[in-house]
Amino acid sequence: MELVAQVLGGDRRALARLISRVENRQNAAHAVLSALYPHTGRAHVVGVTGPPGTGKSTLVNEMAKALRARKRTVGVVAVDPTSPFSGGALLGDRVRMRDLAGDPGVFIRSMATRGSLGGLAKTTSDVVKVLDAAGFEIVLVETVGVGQAEVDVARTAHTTIVIEAPGLGDEVQAMKAGLMEIADILVVNKADRPGAANTARALEITLELGRSHRKEERLWEPPILKTVALTGMGVDKVLDAVADHYGYLQQSDQWTRRERERARSDLLRMLEQELVCQLVERAGEKRIEAWVERIAAREADVYTAVRELIAAK
Amino acid sequence: MELVAQVLGGDRRALARLISRVENRQNAAHAVLSALYPHTGRAHVVGVTGPPGTGKSTLVNEMAKALRARKRTVGVVAVDPTSPFSGGALLGDRVRMRDLAGDPGVFIRSMATRGSLGGLAKTTSDVVKVLDAAGFEIVLVETVGVGQAEVDVARTAHTTIVIEAPGLGDEVQAMKAGLMEIADILVVNKADRPGAANTARALEITLELGRSHRKEERLWEPPILKTVALTGMGVDKVLDAVADHYGYLQQSDQWTRRERERARSDLLRMLEQELVCQLVERAGEKRIEAWVERIAAREADVYTAVRELIAAK
Repeated sequence: MELVAQVLGGDRRALARLISRVENRQNAAHAVLSALYPHTGRAHVVGVTGPPGTGKSTLVNEMAKALRARKRTVGVVAVDPTSPFSGGALLGDRVRMRDLAGDPGVFIRSMATRGSLGGLAKTTSDVVKVLDAAGFEIVLVETVGVGQAEVDVARTAHTTIVIEAPGLGDEVQAMKAGLMEIADILVVNKADRPGAANTARALEITLELGRSHRKEERLWEPPILKTVALTGMGVDKVLDAVADHYGYLQQSDQWTRRERERARSDLLRMLEQELVCQLVERAGEKRIEAWVERIAAREADVYTAVRELIAAK
Repeated sequence: MELVAQVLGGDRRALARLISRVENRQNAAHAVLSALYPHTGRAHVVGVTGPPGTGKSTLVNEMAKALRARKRTVGVVAVDPTSPFSGGALLGDRVRMRDLAGDPGVFIRSMATRGSLGGLAKTTSDVVKVLDAAGFEIVLVETVGVGQAEVDVARTAHTTIVIEAPGLGDEVQAMKAGLMEIADILVVNKADRPGAANTARALEITLELGRSHRKEERLWEPPILKTVALTGMGVDKVLDAVADHYGYLQQSDQWTRRERERARSDLLRMLEQELVCQLVERAGEKRIEAWVERIAAREADVYTAVRELIAAK
């Protein structure tokens, strides 16, 4: 628990160590997260998501720099696809983020996405809590925004930014439609490219379509902003929109509602994990494997196995 | 159970109805799946995955047509991103697949990816089982191949085809590296485009790198094949490779091993779901919500809540 005290005291090296512990789900991780939890709840968690090729990492980098210029402290959690050959993130965020290195007001963590289904969401949520407890005012969570797990990660943020870009293929366009429902702020990045106006217009039409299908009026209408992340163009307007959305969340009941949603999904996920752990321990690996064999051999089906394993406790 | 008999008897309308029931997780779905399960285990399940923009849907379509030309029956499960506005798949598979319509030897289903974390993998796995029981010899499962859940879906196939294409962006390239570890067959689609040879060469180098890091020799080396799905070029070679891989799986212990892996992941997923359901029922929604409130208000942490909810049973 010395590590916890150090992290709460602002020790950045202790923070890095503690996050590794959480990421690797070491034994003491639960105790550490319990101890940190009362210190959470202050950070504004901002999800940044969008299809591949939209320049998310660059935009996140620029947002972090601009937030530092505004004297806000920033944590960044980048959820990257993992290469089995390189054993880590390939996207080079850490290289690109080099201009922020040495600044104690910013902390960047690239996360692997390996592991079991659902592991990603759980670990990311835990790392965000650690950064929140460590006192970072804004935590940016960057995800690829295509897969279901990745979208779920974005959804647990207070504010979700969905990034688009002109000139992506049909398949990518289709994905974007699925993302729009979770967007609080829409950004058309690479706005200096041909087709940017069309992309923005298409987003507007989609938003209008959504509006006409809705019965109640929404109190927050997602703005559509244009950026060129490579030059920093428009990034300040994105931060203004993030601040506006924060104000909206606080004034409405939305902040509380989103906190509750996050608590609910954390609770259910932990329950799942713990209940299965306990059952596997009670039943023993051997008995589980015997059922697996029988299921694979079509001598039993999975529903029978579940029923009998639960009944046997 | 009349529906089950109809499906086993080859009734395609009954099949569509039964799949809808499984997808919507209606009450009787468990009983239906139990009844079908002994009839599964014959289909060769082939996952087709890859980053956006590689032309997966077109290739899957051509594979289905070519398989029909070989007199094999084919089921296709396409896992598509869902648009909240259109309420369904946007990729137009159903339009493209029109040339297969009316042929009882092929059955195509586009699946929504909405719902809770892990729901995708569970439902897809169930639909594959239904098609297997209905007698389809080959079941093609198409997933976007970026998110964790989507990759996990591909991983539960007997044979996994990873599709690449020349000229995709950096971010997409990075994703592909993560996919290579699960590939049994690698396909460079859009092979008539500039850069196709480079893409194939890059894949070869990555495979060689993997080989040099490995201690034991692999009995199956993923072939790298070139296709132009739009014209059907190379599709037959892909099917030959699928047949070769089937032979390899049967001759080695790999078929059994993959069946067991699938059984294990199904079992654990069902256990999770069932255990949480039972606990929520026992504790009552009210008590769960009270804990959610306390967690959101930082009066309790999730670990305490889990401990007390489990202890209270």
